[in-house]
Amino acid sequence: MPQPADRYVHALLESLYRSGVRHLVICPGSRNTPITVAATAPGSPIKTWLHLDERSAGYFALGIARQTGEPVAITCTSGTATANFLPAAVEARLSRVPLIFLTADRPPEARDVGAAQTVDQVGMYGTHVKWSVDLPAADAAVLPDLERYAAAVGARAAAIAREVPAGPVHLNLPLREPLVQPGDEPIPFEVSAGGVESAMRAPLPPASAEVARVLSLIGGKRGVIVCGPENPALPASAIVALAAALRWPVIADPLSGLRTGRHALDAVVETGDAIVREPTFAQQASPEVAIRFGASPTSRPLNEWLASRADMTRIIVDPASDATSGWRDPDLHAALAAPADPGAFCAALLGAIDARAAAPEAWASLWREANAAAREAMQQGIAAIEEPFEGRPVLDLAAVLPDGATFVAGNSMPVRDIDSFFPTTARDIRLVGTRGASGIDGVTSTAAGAAAVAEGPVALMIGDLSFFHDMNGMWPIRRHGLNLTVVLVNNEGGGIFNFLSQRTAVPQRFDEWWGTPSGIDFRAAVELHGGRHALLPARDARGAIAEALSRPGFDVLELRTERDRNVALHRELWAQASTAVRDAVVAARA
Amino acid sequence: MPQPADRYVHALLESLYRSGVRHLVICPGSRNTPITVAATAPGSPIKTWLHLDERSAGYFALGIARQTGEPVAITCTSGTATANFLPAAVEARLSRVPLIFLTADRPPEARDVGAAQTVDQVGMYGTHVKWSVDLPAADAAVLPDLERYAAAVGARAAAIAREVPAGPVHLNLPLREPLVQPGDEPIPFEVSAGGVESAMRAPLPPASAEVARVLSLIGGKRGVIVCGPENPALPASAIVALAAALRWPVIADPLSGLRTGRHALDAVVETGDAIVREPTFAQQASPEVAIRFGASPTSRPLNEWLASRADMTRIIVDPASDATSGWRDPDLHAALAAPADPGAFCAALLGAIDARAAAPEAWASLWREANAAAREAMQQGIAAIEEPFEGRPVLDLAAVLPDGATFVAGNSMPVRDIDSFFPTTARDIRLVGTRGASGIDGVTSTAAGAAAVAEGPVALMIGDLSFFHDMNGMWPIRRHGLNLTVVLVNNEGGGIFNFLSQRTAVPQRFDEWWGTPSGIDFRAAVELHGGRHALLPARDARGAIAEALSRPGFDVLELRTERDRNVALHRELWAQASTAVRDAVVAARA
Repeated sequence: MPQPADRYVHALLESLYRSGVRHLVICPGSRNTPITVAATAPGSPIKTWLHLDERSAGYFALGIARQTGEPVAITCTSGTATANFLPAAVEARLSRVPLIFLTADRPPEARDVGAAQTVDQVGMYGTHVKWSVDLPAADAAVLPDLERYAAAVGARAAAIAREVPAGPVHLNLPLREPLVQPGDEPIPFEVSAGGVESAMRAPLPPASAEVARVLSLIGGKRGVIVCGPENPALPASAIVALAAALRWPVIADPLSGLRTGRHALDAVVETGDAIVREPTFAQQASPEVAIRFGASPTSRPLNEWLASRADMTRIIVDPASDATSGWRDPDLHAALAAPADPGAFCAALLGAIDARAAAPEAWASLWREANAAAREAMQQGIAAIEEPFEGRPVLDLAAVLPDGATFVAGNSMPVRDIDSFFPTTARDIRLVGTRGASGIDGVTSTAAGAAAVAEGPVALMIGDLSFFHDMNGMWPIRRHGLNLTVVLVNNEGGGIFNFLSQRTAVPQRFDEWWGTPSGIDFRAAVELHGGRHALLPARDARGAIAEALSRPGFDVLELRTERDRNVALHRELWAQASTAVRDAVVAARA
Repeated sequence: MPQPADRYVHALLESLYRSGVRHLVICPGSRNTPITVAATAPGSPIKTWLHLDERSAGYFALGIARQTGEPVAITCTSGTATANFLPAAVEARLSRVPLIFLTADRPPEARDVGAAQTVDQVGMYGTHVKWSVDLPAADAAVLPDLERYAAAVGARAAAIAREVPAGPVHLNLPLREPLVQPGDEPIPFEVSAGGVESAMRAPLPPASAEVARVLSLIGGKRGVIVCGPENPALPASAIVALAAALRWPVIADPLSGLRTGRHALDAVVETGDAIVREPTFAQQASPEVAIRFGASPTSRPLNEWLASRADMTRIIVDPASDATSGWRDPDLHAALAAPADPGAFCAALLGAIDARAAAPEAWASLWREANAAAREAMQQGIAAIEEPFEGRPVLDLAAVLPDGATFVAGNSMPVRDIDSFFPTTARDIRLVGTRGASGIDGVTSTAAGAAAVAEGPVALMIGDLSFFHDMNGMWPIRRHGLNLTVVLVNNEGGGIFNFLSQRTAVPQRFDEWWGTPSGIDFRAAVELHGGRHALLPARDARGAIAEALSRPGFDVLELRTERDRNVALHRELWAQASTAVRDAVVAARA
């Protein structure tokens, strides 16, 4: 005899599946047994993934959701297990990834009365989820009503998670004992049956008044399009078409989706971080207008340069105006916040402008030539470096990643090196990161989640502190037989701090409190999880990387570097880029 | 020139120190640099502990605080780092451990506008902290006011964290750049200077009407005192004195503080979990009254037996009536919730009762003899087991732990085995666990925190899934040169589930979704963190455990067992205990 909770849980899972939820990450436990029983039943079409650590599991689910673009559900038992999901919730909210946290809870009568493994889970994720429901407990007397309710909640949860800006939702499900009984008949999974469906909203077009206002701001001006990190990736073809019509450069963050793919790449600037450091170029190239799509870029020099252009009009295009993940204007300089879908916005502008709207050709070539000079100078500069250099694996990966590959950028230094050195390419390489909150946590798990569902190879470039933080994130790689290649940049601590004022302001205490080497033997850590570990040579590592990418399983290629040398080498490269930019562009026009 | 934030942060830290905060756990980062600079400055009296993983660090701080009884502060940088503290906050709230979460934040103007590493930290821990303050940013124009404000907040935070029921508080501190500057003069740490102090509340005595009411309920009745887990440990001497006067047994959870120490132990019953399984005893020993101190006990059979005594009057003594951690009556059978300090309550009753209040001597001896018979039977039963058995290390540890030792109980099976098998002893052994939310997470970190400050040896008994969950919790052991002996009971998964209905209800799917072996080689995991690993033999392990306890450093002794056999052996022991109880007590009185 199925318990009322079994039918109720089935109705919820079936509704989630009908609404596009194909994956459920299961963290084992007792209280969520009815969910596990239903989802793993023979005939269940839901793909289930076991994970033993809820913190890593949250990011693993996030990695799957970012890769598939569909909401992913994740469940755990009651108690502190649920609290472990908060970091992934925070990241999913800010990076706009659809997730459904399905936490099992004790029933209401067990709450707040000292019952074991019973904590206040209602609304636990606060503003870090888009929607939160504490479902009622199953009740045989009103079961048909509750099944319809569960179906409605499931459809709505998926719809809210997916709706722009996508993000996480939280369903808290109280379950009474017995949680499972010997002799229970499995309930057939009915995904074709009725139940409410939710249709997707249309992409939000700009209002006609908004288009007119933008036209008045940009017509005939020297402008730039800035593309920041976004999930899903920005509509590259529409953006470069607009850029071409305006003769504007597209300054593309590596996580914007603009640097790679089949769209026209000639206006795409991948060296924004480097070229704005050159003072004369930075002055000459001052735009009158900037249109930004996506979040604020990763590069601090670029952001500071943009923020310091006193007379520049800034237009931020973002369909989201919600309180937590919207209104992405950290420099507080925007003139117009345009709530529209980027693709629809570009299409509307393209339909409305004519040739007079374009900037002079010299404007486009100034950027194109500066970008080419900086790229060339940095690539040559890296080629000339004999010692281990953290930027080199970026070029190596850019060279060997095939069409259809996914490249996950670790936070702190790796994403900055990828920003600095990953060149544009017509190959269809998916660059993703975790730039919502930009934490160093959960990065390996995010990559493992991508690897769980990606069709092409998946590579991760990550620093040693970040890799240490999420060591349990390696666990599902062996368990689920995933293919992942990791370039581990080991500078024995927080390499980014060597660039900051902590390095010089508190030199005696620097290594102990900011440098913070972990002392971990990463070969042993990787082998603990069934991975292959190898040291990357300082040079000529391309073959080793390509080989790891091409074979199944889990490879970690460790590059050992030295933090202070890393700072010096970066500074040399930026100086070389500046010289090249000056020579190629500034001097030529003087 | 110190920044305004430096003086402000100093005022806060100095106030915390004056209010008894001696330890600060530092998770490295950029935004909390002013806190780190101040706390690690030459002459700072605060003991600082580096930890690289905020989740484990939260539990590490909790372990220090539980051991010292004083509030411990912990700091991290802004962003998802802060979200990693939530599990420890949940546990600290429910297990009543004073903690001060000091999260660095971006300033208000960077919030909710898409700035990097800026998440909604205000009130992030919800009901899981007792108090939460979003401090204003430093401001040179009103710095003297802000320094006094910071001092007041620090004193108040420590007072609230410490006040019964103790628990965590959250101070969110926005910090503007520059976070540190070359040439900054260190600010001297002034802990002797003025500033508000907070005095402790007196222990809450019972109201006289309450004493009279309790007397009317217990006088001349056959009753039991039930002591559940509590932090800090319950006042054992006062409780056993009351028990002696009433001729009542004291059914003592291992985490109550009643099983070990110099107080009279003859009324203390350590086999409550076993003896109530014997039906005739369970009936004969039905009390008319029960007084409970501490939280609900760990033993499910004991709780079910207590809940099923239809005519029993239940008195719950607990000074806390707050919404989240108070009113600990999960079975909802209490007749009287007495808000009083347990020691004061016992003293008041002792002063008010006379000889007529006591139960018959036969009542005391019924319990004493049943307890002795069960203990003896189980110890003999374990001695006769030839194969690896999970309960044996409990007896071994009980035999070899010296006066002044700390024994940390892992959740799930270890705490239950400790409940079943840890006998009373006059040695002063401190038994602690994490029974607030009873999660399997953070347990190694809790033990490492205890080891950081304990004067005697520290032992931890933990299961393999729990040990896997908190592998990063091993990190500070090497870093800070801590001494810790771990008995790792490896039954390759969630051994507790083999006792539950999942085992028989879904046998084909059981191992994959509930048993969940991790596949981790724990020798390699331990060596990764500089520990020594050895397998424990099935028998005669006492010498190995004693040797590990007596030497410095980190030892993990792994006992490999088999889950289904473990269930069978437990059932045999309980059957032997039941037979012994029946023979010794029931038959003798028939």
